[in-house]
Amino acid sequence: MTSNLRIRKADDMHIHLRQGELLAKVLPHTASQCARALVMPNTTPPIVTADDLNNYRNSIQKLLKTEDAFVPLMTFRVMPTTTPAMVKDHKRAGATAGKLYPEGVTTNSEGGVKDLQTLYPVYKAMEEEGLVLCLHGEVPGVFSLDRETAFLETLRTLAKDFPKLKIVLEHATTADAIDTVLKLSANVAATLTAHHLRITLDDVIGDKLNPHVFCKPIAKRPADRDALLKAATSGNPKFFLGSDSAPHPVESKECACGAAGVYTAPVLLPVLAETFESAGHLDKLESFTSRFGAEFYRLPLNEQYIELHRESWTVENQYGGVVPFMAGHRFAWKLSSASSSSKANKTKQTAKSSA
Amino acid sequence: MTSNLRIRKADDMHIHLRQGELLAKVLPHTASQCARALVMPNTTPPIVTADDLNNYRNSIQKLLKTEDAFVPLMTFRVMPTTTPAMVKDHKRAGATAGKLYPEGVTTNSEGGVKDLQTLYPVYKAMEEEGLVLCLHGEVPGVFSLDRETAFLETLRTLAKDFPKLKIVLEHATTADAIDTVLKLSANVAATLTAHHLRITLDDVIGDKLNPHVFCKPIAKRPADRDALLKAATSGNPKFFLGSDSAPHPVESKECACGAAGVYTAPVLLPVLAETFESAGHLDKLESFTSRFGAEFYRLPLNEQYIELHRESWTVENQYGGVVPFMAGHRFAWKLSSASSSSKANKTKQTAKSSA
Repeated sequence: MTSNLRIRKADDMHIHLRQGELLAKVLPHTASQCARALVMPNTTPPIVTADDLNNYRNSIQKLLKTEDAFVPLMTFRVMPTTTPAMVKDHKRAGATAGKLYPEGVTTNSEGGVKDLQTLYPVYKAMEEEGLVLCLHGEVPGVFSLDRETAFLETLRTLAKDFPKLKIVLEHATTADAIDTVLKLSANVAATLTAHHLRITLDDVIGDKLNPHVFCKPIAKRPADRDALLKAATSGNPKFFLGSDSAPHPVESKECACGAAGVYTAPVLLPVLAETFESAGHLDKLESFTSRFGAEFYRLPLNEQYIELHRESWTVENQYGGVVPFMAGHRFAWKLSSASSSSKANKTKQTAKSSA
Repeated sequence: MTSNLRIRKADDMHIHLRQGELLAKVLPHTASQCARALVMPNTTPPIVTADDLNNYRNSIQKLLKTEDAFVPLMTFRVMPTTTPAMVKDHKRAGATAGKLYPEGVTTNSEGGVKDLQTLYPVYKAMEEEGLVLCLHGEVPGVFSLDRETAFLETLRTLAKDFPKLKIVLEHATTADAIDTVLKLSANVAATLTAHHLRITLDDVIGDKLNPHVFCKPIAKRPADRDALLKAATSGNPKFFLGSDSAPHPVESKECACGAAGVYTAPVLLPVLAETFESAGHLDKLESFTSRFGAEFYRLPLNEQYIELHRESWTVENQYGGVVPFMAGHRFAWKLSSASSSSKANKTKQTAKSSA
């Protein structure tokens, strides 16, 4: 059994170093283990111009100690406003790659690209300049577990239309992505994170909720993780490290939010009324809430009535220290204050005597 | 458009009322909208004996106001220790149903049933006594999204072996469950929650992490929600309300834990070394971390080296206010303090000059 391991320092081909105090805190961890790292440009504001890129590189280098031999590989954000001329500026500024985030797909992806087709002149310029196109490969709006798979058609199209452009599918998380990258030319590769080689969706939601392994793309099924691990350990050069290490202050991550359960009681009928109405089946509501259960349990139908009326109201954020389902939601149906309760006392009496 | 709705009060056939102060807080919400509710027995300690059941009913009834006409329908927990004699005691105490939680499947399910077959005498007694068997239908240990589907074979078996036993699959969340319940006899039904008719997994993890809709079983795909909604609104009496309303104090739910990203940098190489070694491919580590990326990016291989050695150590819970990946984990590989850096200054020089 190997007891010592001597290897080259890593090149982390996908990292978030952030800015300011957080940058100063996280940089030493990377600088001590990596020789280089491809620094993502989704800062606030993002790295859009060559000046942004130079300034960001300077702010990183200022924090490096003399003994550090760490080289930040700089990227710019491919935005809807990016032009071929800007691509050339970035090249001159020493950019390594451009990173494209579909609009709204992850942290700080606001203002991202909505239609990837519109940027063909930009990809062309990147191809000509030898700049790598790094893709956050998810389609926003698609069901979370399918977002990456839905993106693969776009990847295939870009690979076909720009055969000389180097493209990296960042932080691949699915067996589908691995298969696709394997089938495409050698100009298409994928980074794999460390955490996606370890976790599945179960680590996020399978037991208690664990915000610390919540990320985009979300971890998938065990078979997907197995495919990533197989790719990572296959020796195929299409797959390499991009850690996607992404620090968030503990305040925005940490919580004891593990307990499982949704508190619907305060809004139960308004929710159901709205839901059934939206489905065009308000006439089925009462059977669902007040008949079928009784019949199944061989109980007489209850003889009490409750009223809702159409009035817009907003659910409180808490009831007695508990956050209700749909807190802050504006409902169209409201419980009427006066609900009739015929035979109320009689029913209660029956209940007590049955104990 | 209907502007007023007058319906019977609900029978909520699956509710968590908790105990003590929380019970006092949540009960009015249910009592004001429901005539009856089937009260779940996974309290702390659980409702196991007829005395437990009577005491719990009393504690609920003591909190009801004179004008309330709410009847709690009581349940007992079917435990590995439950006997046919205890079933008869529960019947005498006025129990409506017995609730079975597979071990470890949800909140307060510790000490649950590991082998459902061992309880056949109990189901037989329940069948004879006319007590309903309520099932939390998930198989623990299976991948989260498949847990309910994996349970359906057990449901079919129980329905076959106890044709006169009334069985409720609680809080169904999948199209598979709906299909199965539809195919089984009229003695098998399913409760549906309000929230599962509204949300999918995307509401939990699709954007920011939302602990307030995190529950067991976890919400599934849009097609599953559609199947639940179709069942709920179909008019088929096999499907009725069980809200599964489950209050947790805000402290155990609330947080700003939405930010997406995993902070791997402090432990990057120890994680990868462990991961590759476990996979039997430690020899592939360096290519993955330090070669393929460079080659793809057409960079010279870096000339710096880092060392890890086999030493057990535990990852800190925070680094500079950020929680790292695998915080608290005990690793077998540790970074050696002295890492060699040949050509360090030269590399840095090159980096700066390229800017």
